[in-house]
This record gives sequence, structure tokens and C-alpha cells, in this order.
Amino acid sequence: MVNETQHTCSASSSSKSDGGSSSGSESSKDSSRCSTPVLDADRHERLREKMRRRQDSGDKWFSLEFFPPRTANGAVNLISRFDRMGAGGPLFIDVTWHPAGDPGSDKETSSMIIANTAVNYCGLETILHMTCCNQTKDDITGHLQKAKRLGLKNIMALRGDPVGEEWEEEVDGFNYAVDLVKHIRNEFDDYFDICVAGYPKGHPEAESYEADLRHLKEKVFAGADFIITQLFFQSETFLKFMKDCQAIGITCPIIPGIFPIQGYHSLRQLVKLSKLEVPQEIKDVIEPIKDNDAAIRNYGVELAVSMCRELLDSGVVHGLHFYTLNREVATTEVLKRLGIWKEDPRRPLPWAVSAHPKRRVEDVRPIFWASRPKSYIYRTQEWDDFPNGRWGNSSSPAFGELKDYYLFYLKSKSPREELLKMWGEELTGEESVFEVFTCYITGEPNKNGHKVTCMPWNDDPLATETNLLKEQLEKVNRRGILTINSQPNINGKPSTDPIVGWGPSGGYVFQKAYLEFFASSEIVTALLKVLKKYELRVNYHIVNVKGQNITNAPDLQPNAVTWGIFPGREIIQPTVVDPVSFLSWKDEAFALWIEQWAKLYEEESPSRMIIQYIHDNYYLVNLVDNDFPLENCLWQVVDDTFELLN
Amino acid sequence: MVNETQHTCSASSSSKSDGGSSSGSESSKDSSRCSTPVLDADRHERLREKMRRRQDSGDKWFSLEFFPPRTANGAVNLISRFDRMGAGGPLFIDVTWHPAGDPGSDKETSSMIIANTAVNYCGLETILHMTCCNQTKDDITGHLQKAKRLGLKNIMALRGDPVGEEWEEEVDGFNYAVDLVKHIRNEFDDYFDICVAGYPKGHPEAESYEADLRHLKEKVFAGADFIITQLFFQSETFLKFMKDCQAIGITCPIIPGIFPIQGYHSLRQLVKLSKLEVPQEIKDVIEPIKDNDAAIRNYGVELAVSMCRELLDSGVVHGLHFYTLNREVATTEVLKRLGIWKEDPRRPLPWAVSAHPKRRVEDVRPIFWASRPKSYIYRTQEWDDFPNGRWGNSSSPAFGELKDYYLFYLKSKSPREELLKMWGEELTGEESVFEVFTCYITGEPNKNGHKVTCMPWNDDPLATETNLLKEQLEKVNRRGILTINSQPNINGKPSTDPIVGWGPSGGYVFQKAYLEFFASSEIVTALLKVLKKYELRVNYHIVNVKGQNITNAPDLQPNAVTWGIFPGREIIQPTVVDPVSFLSWKDEAFALWIEQWAKLYEEESPSRMIIQYIHDNYYLVNLVDNDFPLENCLWQVVDDTFELLN
Repeated sequence: MVNETQHTCSASSSSKSDGGSSSGSESSKDSSRCSTPVLDADRHERLREKMRRRQDSGDKWFSLEFFPPRTANGAVNLISRFDRMGAGGPLFIDVTWHPAGDPGSDKETSSMIIANTAVNYCGLETILHMTCCNQTKDDITGHLQKAKRLGLKNIMALRGDPVGEEWEEEVDGFNYAVDLVKHIRNEFDDYFDICVAGYPKGHPEAESYEADLRHLKEKVFAGADFIITQLFFQSETFLKFMKDCQAIGITCPIIPGIFPIQGYHSLRQLVKLSKLEVPQEIKDVIEPIKDNDAAIRNYGVELAVSMCRELLDSGVVHGLHFYTLNREVATTEVLKRLGIWKEDPRRPLPWAVSAHPKRRVEDVRPIFWASRPKSYIYRTQEWDDFPNGRWGNSSSPAFGELKDYYLFYLKSKSPREELLKMWGEELTGEESVFEVFTCYITGEPNKNGHKVTCMPWNDDPLATETNLLKEQLEKVNRRGILTINSQPNINGKPSTDPIVGWGPSGGYVFQKAYLEFFASSEIVTALLKVLKKYELRVNYHIVNVKGQNITNAPDLQPNAVTWGIFPGREIIQPTVVDPVSFLSWKDEAFALWIEQWAKLYEEESPSRMIIQYIHDNYYLVNLVDNDFPLENCLWQVVDDTFELLN
Repeated sequence: MVNETQHTCSASSSSKSDGGSSSGSESSKDSSRCSTPVLDADRHERLREKMRRRQDSGDKWFSLEFFPPRTANGAVNLISRFDRMGAGGPLFIDVTWHPAGDPGSDKETSSMIIANTAVNYCGLETILHMTCCNQTKDDITGHLQKAKRLGLKNIMALRGDPVGEEWEEEVDGFNYAVDLVKHIRNEFDDYFDICVAGYPKGHPEAESYEADLRHLKEKVFAGADFIITQLFFQSETFLKFMKDCQAIGITCPIIPGIFPIQGYHSLRQLVKLSKLEVPQEIKDVIEPIKDNDAAIRNYGVELAVSMCRELLDSGVVHGLHFYTLNREVATTEVLKRLGIWKEDPRRPLPWAVSAHPKRRVEDVRPIFWASRPKSYIYRTQEWDDFPNGRWGNSSSPAFGELKDYYLFYLKSKSPREELLKMWGEELTGEESVFEVFTCYITGEPNKNGHKVTCMPWNDDPLATETNLLKEQLEKVNRRGILTINSQPNINGKPSTDPIVGWGPSGGYVFQKAYLEFFASSEIVTALLKVLKKYELRVNYHIVNVKGQNITNAPDLQPNAVTWGIFPGREIIQPTVVDPVSFLSWKDEAFALWIEQWAKLYEEESPSRMIIQYIHDNYYLVNLVDNDFPLENCLWQVVDDTFELLN
């Protein structure tokens, strides 16, 4: 009786190519900012509770729909897009189910793995779509178990497109989305939040609009928590639908699906698949400009903005769901013009919070992975508990090995040719390496005219915060102190500070100055002599690739280097210098020389041997200035070292 | 073969009366300061490790011997003495075993319970003496198990005095201290540190000096960790003894027992019991002045100081053990003149740390018990885990009920008559109560000329830190805001600050301003109106005796109000305002009105009814100013409240 195809926009969007290229440049710390608003509750509430809280508080929100990419390269780009669009503060994103693309597999492009990446590595609340048509109960249960294991908490339950022309109901099979909703509730109780699809004009295959509403009610009464609608072209369409839903007793949230028109052909294709009719007045505008992509997109943005304004002004709409077609520009512009894109999303912590339920209490990490948060999440994914309040006594579980440096979500966004342009087609000595580090810091082009916008230890340009130290960093890199991580000292800035702030408003944030670099043994020998003068003030850890370790840290205790004081809260100390995990970081930091840089060159080539020499002979050093209220003394330490060397 | 009586000084001292009266006035926070030095290691190391570390570092130390009191009142005085003498920084204290006084019982005067109090409530590393003569194996094991259960970690193993004239060895019985040492090691493995007694002149009952040395070696080889010697009168006696011990292979620490002569009669009695001979030159000085107590004590101090100097100068003595006879003056003077009494012992935390092994990691407590740390320890003694790093999510185990308000170590040091003089023989209204609070703050005598040196919520005069707020406190108490706890805000003072400092040196300490008081419902109504203006800045909890609770704290989270940042460490936040434990404190704070104050008066007397009225109708209020870098706004809040009332 119920005729329901897969949530149409999803079905159609899965036939689109992953067209967007990585655009814009975010500073590394900016892009690692968590997109969820700052309230702790957001880390602990489930999606339906977040929605309810926003509704109560009157805060308008938005969500973003993506489809899985076709290629591994597409996946790398999509993940960058998650980071960039996540920065605008969506309440959630959703990833469509692509039955033809082995959606439940471990492939890097599968729906399951893309949703996993969004949750765990990008820290986004995520809904995974799932269709049930033509699948066995065991298949479905297997997919759901896997989703649960990966930390996914939300499922969009859909029927999906029947395969073949003649489709017949199977007895006791999954014939409709409602069967999937019931199955999820039977097998997984209340674990998942469940979303279902609604059709403002009625499903094209339904007997009638009224019959379709009744089917929707069945899905909700079977256990769905909220509804996302098919796209529509006029706000009245949605508002009437919502009223009709309420009239028959559907009281859960109903979220309008917004589709900003982005081009003539994509619109035609979508309309064909979803069997929707485009209103005449829209056709009248579009036809004359059908060959002017920019004009159509501008019109699409205008149209979407004005329709969204009407929806939000109606008072009954609290959130807007965007069919992005995996593109950024149009959706971002609509959101910015509506004023619901968060220009400066508050960071709950100074690093990217993972949205995996297991990691909800996590609030301390070693500083070493500041520019490689996804690597940290990957290497700690097997941990059963995550540090909360304190890092603890350094007896934390082991870090996972990083055997596959080409793991797709750790892969550099830049292809080999670009890396060679940035880091040098041919190195002539250690000085050419110093030059690369210096260009990365200054932002100036190298001698071949190429800007160095990433390094093996940092896939993004210099963070805004690090920019504060630019002048000093340039000077020391030029002389062979090859910096890969640093932070200035901060003595009580407001938690709302646009550069260094994090956490709830009304608080104060603090930092100890930190500097981490590679340096030759000659420099390290001089440095150790200088450090004697700073014995009580500066803590250091110095290690080479073989693990020879020199430190003045007492009893292998962690040193808190970032902390915040907030109204009515306990102290939060989100980053520490931990001596034990430094040794795990050391393996990664040294390996990146070889895996990301040396291997760009032929074996036994001079360039490769130079990098290999540095890898084998340099030391990795970290320094903390404990006297955070005084002027940072680490530059003086470095100056003294150079002076001693002269 | 070995003839060894109970460690003589202990035996004799147990016949002394508990003569000292509580003297001097310590501020409440001073007396709650932990006496152990500030290094974390001191909380985690066992006694023998602490000794070894002091020996390695060259830091001289001292320890103090006490005997159990005969009366409950004597116990209250002895505990105050533990607090005062503990403030000088002894490495440990020891409590003698008094076989005639039911030493292993639960009586408040038993050796076991006094040692328990020293460890748990005064935070002192403690050795419990134990004798084995005339006891069954089961008795001894029972005592040791009980000691372990109470958190005692150190035993002084002694034979004790045989009962009766004719004493014969029992086969397989406990005939000598060495049997007890072996038994402890057999039954409790390495749990206890074991101390044994050494006799610099040889035991009086031993066949010879050499034979006695061999017996001592037996005790050490059976598992003793160190030796404390019988008293002696000349440094050469000890130095020769030490050399002789080393010559036969005794390598463990040997601590000289020092007895400052305090009076003619106590010396005579001691000498008789210990069968020691007083050197002729000492007799020559003492006999002529035997009726002049002060002169003898001065001479005794001189003698002890010069002998101790010789011992310390020898280079082989690292610690000195004092037979105090439960008196303070002579020993304290000797220690001060030697320069090893810590005038300003560093506090590891701003509250008194318990020395119970279970509580070693404890480093967070609610601020409410700041003046009643022993009560806090008592009410949490059943907890299995103690907060470390963070207080947590308020789901901590329940606090114990305080049913017996006369529990001896919570009892006021002042007798009823004194309390009546301080708090008023007859109250005429709420204003007379305001007057008592005001006099306590100002230190001025009340209208009957008596100073108010304690209150039901604070058994000591005002803390130095609270003195900083004196002027403001006086003003508000006079008008009926009856303060019982407060701290000023602090924005990064050195951890070595003599008034507010705590923790290792090189750190910085911080506080949020805190104010806690009782007030009438009229005041509270005005206060709540005023607090609206301070909504984001001030957190409050307001509760009456029935538990009606008004707060603006989010999600019942604790608020850290004291914290410290140290070189190479994680953040320490030792005090919090915790909404849940505030309700347990509320029970105690209200009950103290009745138990300590109302019950001084006849039932149905007007005075008693006034206190009862306050108990039934006032509110307990706490306020935190979250903006610690700004000037404390809590006085403004209170001023605004009074203005509104006018």
C-alpha cells in the first residue's frame, strides 16, 4: 500500500560526481575547531535532545546532507569539506546510503566509513541513511551493529528504490521504511535516534496526499524521532504540510529540506528523479538564463534565502536541512545571508572534539598532536577510557602504531607534484631544509616562487595563534631550529578571545609557552648547557629517533600547558606535555620525515639522503616555560644557544 | 637469652599525667596545615623511604614520641598538641603501647585510637608501639590487623615488661622483640615498616654490651627497618654505639633518642625505671638547683641542644628522636634552637592532608569543611576512593551521619563555662547572637569583657587569611549576615606566599572570592533580588534547615574556588563549592547551632529558644565571585542587599 522510494534527494545526489575541489585555506587550529556550540550539554545530549533544547531556546539551526564520494581522492576532499563546513556550526550532517557503492563496507568511500569519519575525526553529529528494500534482516542488523560499534547514534530509515520493474511485497520482509523503524526499535531499543522522510506534496507513488500523511504517521508511531522533508519550492508547501501533519497527531519535529538551485542541469535531473514539479514562475526565470551558471546560482541563492526567511519567520520552523550536493558555495552563502552560519564558532576545547559517544568525557590531550588531531584520534581509537579532568599518571594505554601513513584521512591534501614544488625538487643540503621551514613560517615564496602552505607535520598553513610568534620563529628556523609546534604564554585572557579563547563565555584562559622543534646534535649540546641556567623554570624533553631521552621532568609527570577557569565549573586543562606519550609522538614525528618527505625522491638520490640524515641524526626537542605570568623566556634560551655556538 | 624490657622511656612516660594544657592560639587554617613537607613524594613514600631520601639530600629531621592520655579530656588536649607540634614538621610521631590501658581497644584513650587519630585526623606519619610479652599470637595478629585497617603503616616492635617476678620463656611464644618482628614479617609480609629499640649502653639486663649488640643485629636481620635508641646523656655514647653496630654489620638507620631534662623528679623517676646512670657532671649541676624547675628546664634545654649539635655535626646522624613526655615547651625550644623546627612549614595543599594510605591521592575537598577538617575526614572515612584531580560529577558516595557531636576529636577544646562566657550566659535576642559573631571577627572582648576565641563552626581564632577581610566581615556580621567561612580572591600569587601559598615552590596560586553565612529570610529575600544583577558573575546556593534549596549553579556542577599551577605538573584544584555535598554540610552547620550552642542553656530558656529560632528560620548561604581577576564583588552584593532593606 505505501509507496515510498528512497529519500529522493539522496537518491539523486548519489548520482552526482564529487565536483568540488578543496578551496580556501584555513589555519590548522581553525580547521580543527569543533563546530558544535560550546555548551557541555551538546557533548552529552542525543540529537533529539539537542533539537528540543534549540526549539526551547529559540536558537535557529541548520544541517547539511552529503553523499559518499566515488574515489579515495574524493573522500579526502569531502573530509576537508566536512572540516570547513563543520566550522559553520551545523547541528548535524547526514550521509546518504548508496546501495550500489557497497555502503556498509570498510571501503574508504562507503557510506558507513564516511559517516564514521564525520563523527570520529571531524567531530560532527552525524545521521547515517539506511535503506531496507531488497535486504535481509541479517544484513540490516549487521549494518546497524557496525554503525553502533563505530559510534554512530542516528539513522535515517528509508525504503530505498526497489530493484527491477516489477516489485512485490515480501511477507515478513522489509517492504517499507516503517518496517526498518520497527526493526531498529526491536533490536536496538532506544540506542539510535531515528529520522524518517516526509513528502510535502505527497509521495509521487502514494494513492493520495492524505494516504501519504497516514503512512508518515505510521512511521512516527513506530518510533521515529523526527522528520526531514523532501525538497520543495515554496514555503507555503511546507507550512501546509506541517499543519496537516499536526492535524493528524504528528507532533515530532519536522525539518524542511532546502535545495538551493545551483545549475540548470542539476535541477532538471533532480526534478526528473524526484518527480517534482517546478513552479511556472521559477521556470520562467531560469529558462532564459539556462546557459549562465553564475546567474542561475545567484538566483538559486536568492530564492532559497527568501524561502528560508519565510519559513523561519513563520515561527514554527526552528531548523533548516540543506541538500548540499557535496558543494559548498551556494549553501554557505544562503546560511551566511540568513545569519545562521556561525562566523566564529566558539570552541568547547582548544582542540577538535570527537563526536564518538565513548569520547564524550575526553577533555585532556597531549599537545604534540595539536596539528594532527585526526592522527591522535586514530591512534587512540582502541582506548576504552579517555582522560577526563587530568591526563593522569602516564600509565595510559598504548598508542596504536601508525603503519599505514597513507591512511586516507591522514593523507596530505596536496599531490606529490605540489609537495615537490613546495619542499624542493632537489635538496642541496640541510640548509635547503631550513629554507623550507622558514618559507612555511613567513608565507613568502621559496626561491622557485612557490609558497609553502603545508609541512609533513602540519597539512594547513600556520595557525593564527602561531602567527603571533612569526618573527621569532622565522629567525630560529633559518638557523636550523626546525619548529613544528609552538604556543605563546597567556596569563588570563577572556575565554571569548577570538584567537586564543575557548570554552564557555565568562571564563579566563591561560597557557604556558611551548616550543617543539628538530635540531642537530650540535645545537642540542649547546642547548643543554644553556638550559642549566633555566633549570627550575624550563622543563625539557629531548629525544632522538632511537629513543635516547634527556629530560628534567620530575617523575615522568605531565605538565599542564593550557587551562581555563570558568564560572561555576571545575578547572579544565585540555592540553598537557606528557613525557610518556611524547615517545609515541616521537615515532610519528620522525617517521613523517621519511614517509612524507624523503619518499618524494628517488632512492639513493642526494635529496633523499639529506632527509634520511636529518631523520637519523637530529633530535626532537620540546620546551615549556613554567613561568606563564612572566615574559616567555624560550626565545632567550634559543638566543643563548646560538650565542654559545658562535 | 636476650633480656629486653619495653622501650624504657615509653614505659616510664606512661606513668606521667597528661599535664599540659592547650596553650597558644593558632589560626584555624594554620592549625589545619599539614605538617609534612611539601613534596608529593612524602605522601606516597613509606617511612623508610622518606628517611633514606632525607639522608641522601642531607635534610636533617626530627620525630616526636608521645604516650596515650588517661582521660578523654587528656585526649582532646593531646590531639591539639599533635596539631601544634605537627606544624613544626616532624618526620613522624610515635605513640607508646600502654599494656595497662587496654591499648588495642576502641577507647578514645587507647594507644591504637590515639595513633589512628594522629594518622587520619592530624595527618602525621605515625609509628604505633606494640609489645608482645604475655600475649597470644591471636591477640597480636588481631592488633596488627586492626592497625592496618586504620591506615597505620609502622610498628615499633618491643618485648614489653614481663608480668610477675619470675619470668620464663614460653616455647613458641613471644619471648623477645625479635619474635614479634618475625611474626609481623610472616603474617604481613612487607606491609609494615618495623622499628626496634637499641641500647647505647647495652640493655641493663643483657649479659654484656656485646651480647646486646648481637641481639640487636638479630632483630634487624629478622626484618626491622630502623632503630631508635634509648635515651643517653653524652653524644660519645651514641657515636660509639653506632660505630659498634656498623662494625658487626648493622647498616639500617639508627636514630638517637633525645631526652631534654625537664625537671628533677621526672629525671629521677626515668633513671630509676631505665636503670641508666646519670653522669656525675650533670648531677653536679642539678642537685644545687633541684627545687628550681625553670632553672632545671633551662639547663636541660642547653644540654640537649649542645648534645644534638654534636650529633648532627658528626655527619652520621640525620634525624633526632625526642622523648616529649607529652610536653611541648622544652622539645620545641630545643628544635627551634637547632633550626630544624619548620617555622613556616610549606603546605602541600591548602587543607590538612590525612596520612591514611587510602587517602594518598586525595587532592580535592569541598570548601565547607575548611575549618572542620577532622569532621570532613570522619564523615568520609568509609569512602573507598577519594577525589583526585577533580571532584567529579557530584555522584560521590554519601557522607556519614554526624550523630555523636561529642565525638572526642570533634569536641570543642573549651569547657562549657568558657563557652558560656564567650557566647553569652543569657541571650536577649538575635542581636546578642550578631554581637557574638562580631566579637569573634574583631577579636575585641564582648560586653562582659571576654574574648570570643571560637565559634561552633570554628574551634580556633580567625585564620590569618580571613584577617585580610576583617573590616568587611565586622560590618556585615553586626547587621546579621553571620559569616562562618570566607576567602578573598587571589589572581596568581607565588606558591611560597606566607599567607595564601601552598604546594611546591615555583608555582602560582589562585582563588575565587567565597563567602558563607547564615541570614534571616528577610535578608535572603533582598539578597536574591540583588543577585539578579550579578547573574553571570556570582554563583549562589541558599538552603534552610529543611533543605529548601535555591541556586543558579548549572547542572549541579562543582565550582573550583582554589587552584594552583606548578612547574612540570598538572593543575591542582584542592577546593570546590560542590552543590551536592553542600547539603551534607548544611545538616552539620545547622546542627552545630543546637548541639554546641543551644544546649548550653536550660531547655525552654529564652536563650535556648533564640538559638532554636535561628536554627529553624535562618538560611545558610554561599556565594562565589567567578571573576577572580577583578575586585571581589561580594561585598558590593551584601551592601546592595542592606541598601535594599533600608
